[in-house]
Amino acid sequence: MNESSKIAIIGGGSWATAIAKILRENDVELNWYMRNVDTSSQFKKIGHNPRYLTDVDFDIDKIRFYNDINHIIEDSDLIIFAIPSAFLKNALSKLTVKLNDKFIVSAIKGIVPDENMIIGDFFHNIYQVPTDSIGVISGPCHAEEVAMERLSYLTISCQDAEKANFLAEKLECPYIMTTTSDDIYGTEYAAVLKNVFAIAAGICHGLRYGDNFQSVLISNAIQEIKRFVDTVHPIDRDIKSSAYLGDLLVTCYSQFSRNRTFGTMIGKGYSVKTAQLEMHMIAEGYYAVKCIKEINEKYKVHMPITTAVYNILYDRISPAIEITLLTEELR
Amino acid sequence: MNESSKIAIIGGGSWATAIAKILRENDVELNWYMRNVDTSSQFKKIGHNPRYLTDVDFDIDKIRFYNDINHIIEDSDLIIFAIPSAFLKNALSKLTVKLNDKFIVSAIKGIVPDENMIIGDFFHNIYQVPTDSIGVISGPCHAEEVAMERLSYLTISCQDAEKANFLAEKLECPYIMTTTSDDIYGTEYAAVLKNVFAIAAGICHGLRYGDNFQSVLISNAIQEIKRFVDTVHPIDRDIKSSAYLGDLLVTCYSQFSRNRTFGTMIGKGYSVKTAQLEMHMIAEGYYAVKCIKEINEKYKVHMPITTAVYNILYDRISPAIEITLLTEELR
Repeated sequence: MNESSKIAIIGGGSWATAIAKILRENDVELNWYMRNVDTSSQFKKIGHNPRYLTDVDFDIDKIRFYNDINHIIEDSDLIIFAIPSAFLKNALSKLTVKLNDKFIVSAIKGIVPDENMIIGDFFHNIYQVPTDSIGVISGPCHAEEVAMERLSYLTISCQDAEKANFLAEKLECPYIMTTTSDDIYGTEYAAVLKNVFAIAAGICHGLRYGDNFQSVLISNAIQEIKRFVDTVHPIDRDIKSSAYLGDLLVTCYSQFSRNRTFGTMIGKGYSVKTAQLEMHMIAEGYYAVKCIKEINEKYKVHMPITTAVYNILYDRISPAIEITLLTEELR
Repeated sequence: MNESSKIAIIGGGSWATAIAKILRENDVELNWYMRNVDTSSQFKKIGHNPRYLTDVDFDIDKIRFYNDINHIIEDSDLIIFAIPSAFLKNALSKLTVKLNDKFIVSAIKGIVPDENMIIGDFFHNIYQVPTDSIGVISGPCHAEEVAMERLSYLTISCQDAEKANFLAEKLECPYIMTTTSDDIYGTEYAAVLKNVFAIAAGICHGLRYGDNFQSVLISNAIQEIKRFVDTVHPIDRDIKSSAYLGDLLVTCYSQFSRNRTFGTMIGKGYSVKTAQLEMHMIAEGYYAVKCIKEINEKYKVHMPITTAVYNILYDRISPAIEITLLTEELR
């Protein structure tokens, strides 16, 4: 990576828009892919994303919009994927160009359904991207607060420290502090799991459990994350760092969390279908809990909260009963 | 301790009242000390605490009220102190009877001012109570949620496991789960520090920092707690347990937290004096931060958040400036 490296963003949602805003603070000229032609042409006309973070204005002259995935990949060196994990396979279905000579960065925080792989593994296994060319951008960072320019911290992970530092530098700005890490597996899995636990927090909130209980739930959740990532990828890491614990906290406690809102509706008695229809948004944790459950069949880590969320969402066990059973497991 | 052991509560505030309610679920006959004669005589008349948790009714026939500290100590075997730490020395000033043959339990979560000792050390050093006769009741547990009978978890610490188990059994009830621990020092220091960090969280909220930042602050806070307690009392403990992390979370995030409210007022520009007058309640963290700062002169643990709160409250550094400096220290 060097100053002439071209940076691309794949995705037109709120997190993609937030990352674009941050990169533009450093005057990075962007390539930006949106699947929908109407969205990008309207974006060009009005100078901001027509659907997400609409208050954030962009200098359109510094952005090249693409609707063809092959064109943008060909034209770029560092590619940031920021689309829901459930759409990733579809977005890449027309890909004919190679990815394995690019720096591929996941800002996705999900697992590829069917494949049951975190994003890094997916690009490595299916697209032969070398592990030291895979990066991860982790929060705690809700896009809405980036739009408001409220101070936030990002962790940029890559096993190649030079690449991590390059991207961190491009993302550092007056309201974004960055740290780097080499833990692409731990940060991705933690980011996936936090959505499951945010659904759990929402369910308990919906069932009228109080603040005392929530804090016990979340203390147990970070222990569950540690058990899982230390088993799946055993390296030395401090799970109390912002990229793991902080990301869990912001998702479980924030009013902006889609997963928590989805969980609250489930706890209040909505069916999964009704809750999804009401929200008009994807709660990543819904897909994540199924994938984690399946992945964990191999590792057999003790994950009582994850199991409870799975049982409620997929086996239609009553939230009240399932959470009552869970309370006996917590300490 | 055995079934004929007499249990006493010292204090008439909300936490004392919550503990009394829990013990009464197990039909424990209570000795209960309140300094104010009017409070206890009114309590007897109306069947509930006239000032705190007024919705909680008690069977007055099962409670013996005391206004003389020596009488209640003489009549009791297990004595739970639940008064603000700032009042403890005064409450004991008329003591003439011995404490060193009793099981002394702290539900105080504070440091004795001037002495700069946690409650356990205070009873050990000044009243010769053996360390294995000192107990600690830790949350996460706001009294208000006990009043509502919302499921909460308590950790009972004592180096004598039998004593810890005895008290845990008396506190276990349909809405209280208990765990035991031998870490009287770690749980007490963590309970003290969490109030300092709740003030920090409040200050940042008052300064309009957002959820993303709060989660980073709290992730750094639990690391600061670990560094401190592992230095002061180095034993094997999991700082992610409910008694440490959970207690921090409920205090930093809950609407019931006095310390957070106090911090918010400071962040919004109130003076310490005005904030204290407005609140009509003691924010324990105000005293705690000074004590911890002084204790840490010996240990020299890196405590950037504690230092920032101290500088704001005692050295009158502008919250905006001090927190801006702090943001550079967080990761």
